[in-house]
Amino acid sequence: MGDLRIIVYGVGAMGSNMVRMLQSIKGCRVVGAIDWDEKKIGRDLGDLAGLGKRLGVKVAYPPAEVLGRVKADIVLHATTAFLDQAAGQISGVLEHGINVVTICQELFFPLPKNSARAKRIDAQAVGTGARVTSVGINPGFIMDIVPILCSTPCWEVGSVLVRRNVDFSPYGPDEMRHIGANLTEREFRKGVRQGTIGHIGLLETAAMVSHCLGLEADELRQTKEPILTVKTRQTPYVSIAPGRVCGFKQNVVGFSRGEKTLDFQMVGILSPDRQVDGIELGDYARINGVPNVDIVIREEISQKGGLGTAAVAVNIIPRLMAAP
Amino acid sequence: MGDLRIIVYGVGAMGSNMVRMLQSIKGCRVVGAIDWDEKKIGRDLGDLAGLGKRLGVKVAYPPAEVLGRVKADIVLHATTAFLDQAAGQISGVLEHGINVVTICQELFFPLPKNSARAKRIDAQAVGTGARVTSVGINPGFIMDIVPILCSTPCWEVGSVLVRRNVDFSPYGPDEMRHIGANLTEREFRKGVRQGTIGHIGLLETAAMVSHCLGLEADELRQTKEPILTVKTRQTPYVSIAPGRVCGFKQNVVGFSRGEKTLDFQMVGILSPDRQVDGIELGDYARINGVPNVDIVIREEISQKGGLGTAAVAVNIIPRLMAAP
Repeated sequence: MGDLRIIVYGVGAMGSNMVRMLQSIKGCRVVGAIDWDEKKIGRDLGDLAGLGKRLGVKVAYPPAEVLGRVKADIVLHATTAFLDQAAGQISGVLEHGINVVTICQELFFPLPKNSARAKRIDAQAVGTGARVTSVGINPGFIMDIVPILCSTPCWEVGSVLVRRNVDFSPYGPDEMRHIGANLTEREFRKGVRQGTIGHIGLLETAAMVSHCLGLEADELRQTKEPILTVKTRQTPYVSIAPGRVCGFKQNVVGFSRGEKTLDFQMVGILSPDRQVDGIELGDYARINGVPNVDIVIREEISQKGGLGTAAVAVNIIPRLMAAP
Repeated sequence: MGDLRIIVYGVGAMGSNMVRMLQSIKGCRVVGAIDWDEKKIGRDLGDLAGLGKRLGVKVAYPPAEVLGRVKADIVLHATTAFLDQAAGQISGVLEHGINVVTICQELFFPLPKNSARAKRIDAQAVGTGARVTSVGINPGFIMDIVPILCSTPCWEVGSVLVRRNVDFSPYGPDEMRHIGANLTEREFRKGVRQGTIGHIGLLETAAMVSHCLGLEADELRQTKEPILTVKTRQTPYVSIAPGRVCGFKQNVVGFSRGEKTLDFQMVGILSPDRQVDGIELGDYARINGVPNVDIVIREEISQKGGLGTAAVAVNIIPRLMAAP
């Protein structure tokens, strides 16, 4: 990749994965780290990312302090799924003419509610000559890019069905909140109404597939249902009593002139029991077309989502740098 | 796609599929057809491609006559797997400044023996401003592009294993010759030595995957073994006696510093019997890396290879036209 200087913006689980992955990549050097968390500011990035060695790079804040002080080619941005929070952060990076790879889910394929923000970012990037891209596993790969690529040998595409079943047991407190772990059904449904529960990006995935495959869905409907456990479940971060929420089933369907053409479902569950839950972990996509395409990606990617997200962000760097 | 004028170069099974597929695509019009076969010259392309209607386009030869007479944007080229035969044909099209999509297997990722020819084509395309691309299902999609794309979420890639098992029963006399149907084992092995038996493109596939995934295989070894039947097998074009060849098993392995890093196997078999043959039709790829990626594409694509090849050639047109 030549000699590239990288700033990590957001030193949580994903940013730390990126730092770890970059250690084995020649020609890339982490030269700065940004995080607002007071418990992280001032700490060495190598310690924080669990490298077992110091990197001589201290986490700092505010962002402009790092961006103005350190000469860098790329910012790897991993702070939030929500574009209303990310937009200002990305804009602040672009002001310094630095390229951005973000894993902000809502920027992957901006929905109408985010299109004005996305257009401003695009205009700023064009104006400064810096490049911005949004990548990830989901959205960004498994439920969208894979089925879009796999439609290449199709004469026609009538509809697309995608299923993703993930064991969330290894994840930490943030993800436990997102899936509503150990809530009552009533509390879960309240969280859904408030927008605090569920996976961010499934609507973006459906919208991108619809666009790229010419399905022209004129309506996308999202639902989120709780999965209630009949037995106690234990994970490193939470214990779930019988009758409480141990996962979610999130579904987006899309209609084109009254016909269902898109059907995307993501299930996140804690300590799944195949017999009891009837859930096969892994990823599955079916394109109903001529010919049909039927793809199974077995368990491992779905269970290494954190690694995968860091990897797509790092692996996209050469393409970002080569982009016109 | 706007209003594109297309010439079909080679009106065999693949060219005919392309003509049929193009009928349902708005903004594309077939305006010429080239074939050297005297039984086809002068016939209407619609009749020949089995459209059930005439297109008002007559198959003609020599190529320069069609290329000089008809104004066209793109030639869909489907005459041969071999670049020594295809190179002159493609060059003849480029002389008229017309873009080319070819399914010539050897141009997909030219091996050293073909690199001079490929470079001449590239230089001529650059000189005339016309674009050339080589596409297909295999090579071009299922054993190469799919595993390359699916490595996106990998931190590391150590080795790649791909298996493709195809029932060749629906194919015609040409393919029966390629797979050595109803030969004795001795005749099969003689055909392998003479280069008349086997699938063209597996070496190209392995070379491309090695290149794109940074595996740097310094040696590729190809073997072709017969599959002998213990019972009579019947297909529309051939009857096979017990003890004779009913298929082939073609393998390419690649080594990087003594380690096996690539293992590609294609099996083509007639009237497979899962019990007897132990062969599961379909496509399978495994990336051994961090994380591992394990992909299954079920039977349908492998059994609709002809449709798929036509589709990738037609579906690439917008990208070809948008290329710089």
